[in-house]
Amino acid sequence: MADKVRILGIVGSPRHGNTEILVKEALKAAEEVGGVETETLHVAPLKVNPCIACFRCFDEKDSRRGCPSFDDDMEKVYPRLAACDGMIIGSPVYFGGITGELKTFLDRTEPFVRYARTGYGGGLSNKVGGAIAVGYNRNGGQETSIQMIHAYYLVHDMIVVGSGLVETPGCYYGGGAVTYPKRSRIRDAVLEDELGLRSSRGLGRKVAEVAKMVKASHA
Amino acid sequence: MADKVRILGIVGSPRHGNTEILVKEALKAAEEVGGVETETLHVAPLKVNPCIACFRCFDEKDSRRGCPSFDDDMEKVYPRLAACDGMIIGSPVYFGGITGELKTFLDRTEPFVRYARTGYGGGLSNKVGGAIAVGYNRNGGQETSIQMIHAYYLVHDMIVVGSGLVETPGCYYGGGAVTYPKRSRIRDAVLEDELGLRSSRGLGRKVAEVAKMVKASHA
Amino acid sequence: MADKVRILGIVGSPRHGNTEILVKEALKAAEEVGGVETETLHVAPLKVNPCIACFRCFDEKDSRRGCPSFDDDMEKVYPRLAACDGMIIGSPVYFGGITGELKTFLDRTEPFVRYARTGYGGGLSNKVGGAIAVGYNRNGGQETSIQMIHAYYLVHDMIVVGSGLVETPGCYYGGGAVTYPKRSRIRDAVLEDELGLRSSRGLGRKVAEVAKMVKASHA
Amino acid sequence: MADKVRILGIVGSPRHGNTEILVKEALKAAEEVGGVETETLHVAPLKVNPCIACFRCFDEKDSRRGCPSFDDDMEKVYPRLAACDGMIIGSPVYFGGITGELKTFLDRTEPFVRYARTGYGGGLSNKVGGAIAVGYNRNGGQETSIQMIHAYYLVHDMIVVGSGLVETPGCYYGGGAVTYPKRSRIRDAVLEDELGLRSSRGLGRKVAEVAKMVKASHA
Repeated sequence: MADKVRILGIVGSPRHGNTEILVKEALKAAEEVGGVETETLHVAPLKVNPCIACFRCFDEKDSRRGCPSFDDDMEKVYPRLAACDGMIIGSPVYFGGITGELKTFLDRTEPFVRYARTGYGGGLSNKVGGAIAVGYNRNGGQETSIQMIHAYYLVHDMIVVGSGLVETPGCYYGGGAVTYPKRSRIRDAVLEDELGLRSSRGLGRKVAEVAKMVKASHA
Repeated sequence: MADKVRILGIVGSPRHGNTEILVKEALKAAEEVGGVETETLHVAPLKVNPCIACFRCFDEKDSRRGCPSFDDDMEKVYPRLAACDGMIIGSPVYFGGITGELKTFLDRTEPFVRYARTGYGGGLSNKVGGAIAVGYNRNGGQETSIQMIHAYYLVHDMIVVGSGLVETPGCYYGGGAVTYPKRSRIRDAVLEDELGLRSSRGLGRKVAEVAKMVKASHA
Repeated sequence: MADKVRILGIVGSPRHGNTEILVKEALKAAEEVGGVETETLHVAPLKVNPCIACFRCFDEKDSRRGCPSFDDDMEKVYPRLAACDGMIIGSPVYFGGITGELKTFLDRTEPFVRYARTGYGGGLSNKVGGAIAVGYNRNGGQETSIQMIHAYYLVHDMIVVGSGLVETPGCYYGGGAVTYPKRSRIRDAVLEDELGLRSSRGLGRKVAEVAKMVKASHA
Repeated sequence: MADKVRILGIVGSPRHGNTEILVKEALKAAEEVGGVETETLHVAPLKVNPCIACFRCFDEKDSRRGCPSFDDDMEKVYPRLAACDGMIIGSPVYFGGITGELKTFLDRTEPFVRYARTGYGGGLSNKVGGAIAVGYNRNGGQETSIQMIHAYYLVHDMIVVGSGLVETPGCYYGGGAVTYPKRSRIRDAVLEDELGLRSSRGLGRKVAEVAKMVKASHA
């Protein structure tokens, strides 16, 4: 399977629910492109300390791990991030942005920044990234949440794509989903959101297609 | 009527259609607050030259007009901008942002920037601003268009508000409307968009309420 | 002192450093407006559980506390949020956005959303908000971080202001600061950033002035 | 030269000045990657009618031209857009966004949207896009202007990249330049802005590299 491109789906919700459904739909669509393998990572169950801005990953190479300060679940995550060719990050919309838990997780990818001397430094460069956001209010921060994930990708020198050349995707920027008029607490409310599903699937395909292009160009 | 607060609605669409409907709904809601008078300004029919970055409004006071370089329809607009207490700018979503025509119009409010020696310099400070955007795709740039209008307001030191304390406004950031599944070419498609109407009306009320607070504090 | 407006500064950094310096400069400038009292809140030392989307604060009134699920340090924070007239939130830029720790803190203000039956529901409406961001790279996400804080404010129906009618503020949207060419690990690097200090002070004054207007209008 | 990738630089300024300098620096850096040819397009001298939302490009194929409504300078632009592999759009910051003239130009690429029956429909898909913004104020809207250009790219299903794996690029999102403390009216003020030049050059290289990957994958 070494030739397959690998797409990593990251679920930034505290629950198993709408965000997970959408990320998995995106990954399924990515697999249908062919030559793609996927895996899903849930952020909530992980034990992740917030970055303390110690800057030690800029200074030293710890032969045992990526983060010199904390030996927590991120150490199992780093190799998976390094190994993927594409990434799909999904989040429920919390106050117009991604969840704090997800942001804390993303902040701890500091060992991958270009300045890091961790062995991971610059290691997300040219991976392909797509974003999914789901909220109750219809225009309730889905776009601004996606923007925040795109900002993250660009800091890591990743390649950003949207939901692909789908007719009426509902959201061009990524997967954009709405639970209204169902309440957000209903964990599978997005199954009735045709546009949310369509844009998430389009995003999955797009990430896969561009990741394949990038990989093929290195062959 | 001198004691009434004045809310200026600006329609950034080339057509008489959905954007105009929403701006007028917002203005009607503003009037219902009481002590409010409103007027609507259409950008499209105006003859407006693009700003040429001559910087002459930074250097000189032309006793006859606001823009030293062009004697076009903006001269009739400047006093209306100066006289309002609140502003509601609406735009259809074009490529994730406001229309070029509307941006060209806004760019020509350069005589109001803080550095201008036009008599208008700093003249929009503390006016209250709200934004409305309407698109075909559901999460198709409504939020990013509203952001662009908010950026404009903040450069002018204006006070930014969203759609008010409405239950399920659909969009907190401002009026966010969708024409899908009707096609955008249908000029009154938004009449069926309950959330778009609700958030626009909420915005109108909010702009009026905060503009009244600001005015009352100066009384 | 009951008549004074109260401005709450929130420091979203894990350290005592540049963000704290800027928030305190903003608060000092706010106090110089007169009739203003301020306090500072550090997020990092607080024990704050991430929101688990239980939606219980939408359903029930717990007479003892704001969050029905967690009895942590947020309970001491809620009354301070409820009591303030203005808020200044500062964050270092982490991957183009605010820190995960700060976002987790903000997410836990869910008992203040309009739908909450906590006694705090809608309780941040009409409070005035300003934002500060400091990064190493010059255009490294200061604006996108400020946007994220503004999104938070608008969801709470707050009133958003920028850095005021300062000449060359460096950043109109809020306090925008840069540590480069000094390294971000230097905790007082921003003391040499004239534009960062200027925009933060301008922001502090602006939040105070508009908060006073809002309060005066209710007198 | 058919095998070279083609990068199109678009200058959205009314002047020959700082924006043009940065776009040309980016294009020069792109050429240094090798196998790249570039061209520059100035928007200001073109006669471009604003899009009137006639939707005729959705309905009909005009064998003679892309826009059924206007026979203006865009007709010469369309083939150049169709022929490029990558695009670098630069703008001065006007009120936190791109110039109205540039937005009007971009709006008129409607014949390339996925819904168009013009022969150009979907024609910008998978082209690689980068953005440059230059302003007087240091954090004065460079990021929000770049965001607006990225939104445009994503609507066209383009691939978005930032300024590459440069050390201290000053701006990750694209070319981010500042004229302060020199005044913006000085047409070559950015020549002294090391970070602005560095991020623009990095962007040029990045657009070229990724455009080459995409092209190679199709070979």
